[in-house]
Amino acid sequence: MTPTITAFERSPDGGKGLARDMRVRWALEEVGQPYDVRLLSFKAMKEPAHLALHPFGQIPTYEEGGLALFESGAIVFHIAARHAGLLPDDANARARAITWMFAALSTMEPPIVDLAIARFLERDEAWYEQRLPLVEDRVRNRLGQLSLRLGDADWLDGPFSVGDLMMASVLLRLKASGLLDQYPNLSAYVARGEARPAYKRAFEAQLAVFTAASWT
Amino acid sequence: MTPTITAFERSPDGGKGLARDMRVRWALEEVGQPYDVRLLSFKAMKEPAHLALHPFGQIPTYEEGGLALFESGAIVFHIAARHAGLLPDDANARARAITWMFAALSTMEPPIVDLAIARFLERDEAWYEQRLPLVEDRVRNRLGQLSLRLGDADWLDGPFSVGDLMMASVLLRLKASGLLDQYPNLSAYVARGEARPAYKRAFEAQLAVFTAASWT
Ligand SMILES: N[C@@H](CCC(=O)N[C@@H](CS)C(=O)NCC(=O)O)C(=O)O
Ligand SMILES: N[C@@H](CCC(=O)N[C@@H](CS)C(=O)NCC(=O)O)C(=O)O
Repeated sequence: MTPTITAFERSPDGGKGLARDMRVRWALEEVGQPYDVRLLSFKAMKEPAHLALHPFGQIPTYEEGGLALFESGAIVFHIAARHAGLLPDDANARARAITWMFAALSTMEPPIVDLAIARFLERDEAWYEQRLPLVEDRVRNRLGQLSLRLGDADWLDGPFSVGDLMMASVLLRLKASGLLDQYPNLSAYVARGEARPAYKRAFEAQLAVFTAASWT
Repeated sequence: MTPTITAFERSPDGGKGLARDMRVRWALEEVGQPYDVRLLSFKAMKEPAHLALHPFGQIPTYEEGGLALFESGAIVFHIAARHAGLLPDDANARARAITWMFAALSTMEPPIVDLAIARFLERDEAWYEQRLPLVEDRVRNRLGQLSLRLGDADWLDGPFSVGDLMMASVLLRLKASGLLDQYPNLSAYVARGEARPAYKRAFEAQLAVFTAASWT
């Protein structure tokens, strides 16, 4: 059964692959599962039909037969659990890969989102200039710790896993900020993610939405 | 094999059960798995021995034979996956319970942590009074959406699951703020969590650490 995911009709990032449907597309491409996409306007995302699928009125969602999921973490985990390729067979290695998924979402992503909130939503506030360095320091603190742990390994724990997919997806959001450049091993890690054929196919697919939208 | 978790030697909350070892203790109590606790000072948490276990120098961690995990989400999921009692048998219901776990950690917890950061770390900053209402509004927005979804149900999706354990653990951190009181169904939801015998046993265990520490 072909699953259907939701994505922005017009992604605010202009097709840079930073919206959270990208990680779901990437996971689906890694395991070779074809999928359909339903595009949503910002208005439609807040209407009852979509709120029934996603209580917080966001993308992505995932529908497959009678199953409806939201939260990119839950969706990517579901894909990884149902198909081979994103989770190691060994039970302990599997638990560690899942740990990195949670580390990406629960430790790395929050300060990175805070930085985006500060930059975009609080740009015109009186405190913007003064507070920004604090927020950047919180991101740098986590990047420094992650950089130390990664060292010169290719991936966080053995071969590429769902943990790396999620971590690279989260770190990617920092590319424009310049913060990532201060950690060459993390920049190289993200580049390794982007170089994967599955990533490239996912990226092209989300970009095509944007390109198509610009034509209409 | 008895697992060992880490917790604060002196929790900054004075034993209110708000530190993230609490959710791990709660999960272990729900499934009836005895555990050992290793207490850590703030200093020890940043030393190489602990950083080898937890790259971000935090609690909780989880060790069981050759397996070492960090991230409360990963640990609670590991416990739920290995024992009966926290995940439904039906595959779709299981995926939905996991979705609520991610919603707790990736949608609800970040603004709740931001509020704590604003309140405690930015209290003396020039922007404190002006910015606080913005941060509170972000929390209220999520509480309002969650409250609508929960409605008059006891738990988020069928019987109590790991999703409720994580959501109640996250919401609990708001009790002192007064924000939760504005959503009677969410307050009642949290109270139902706290009333569970497993929660109470876990709460007593973390409180005992604090009481013991106060005596020395
Ligand atoms: N924790 C959620 C976050 C979802 C999220 O923030 N989605 C964004 C797009 S990347 C969205 O829909 N934003 C529009 C809105 O919140 O109104 C996840 O990982 O899926
Ligand atoms: N995302 C992590 C967060 C862990 C965390 O923030 N732990 C706190 C205690 S609740 C801690 O160790 N704080 C001390 C520090 O960060 O230095 C998890 O869910 O386990």
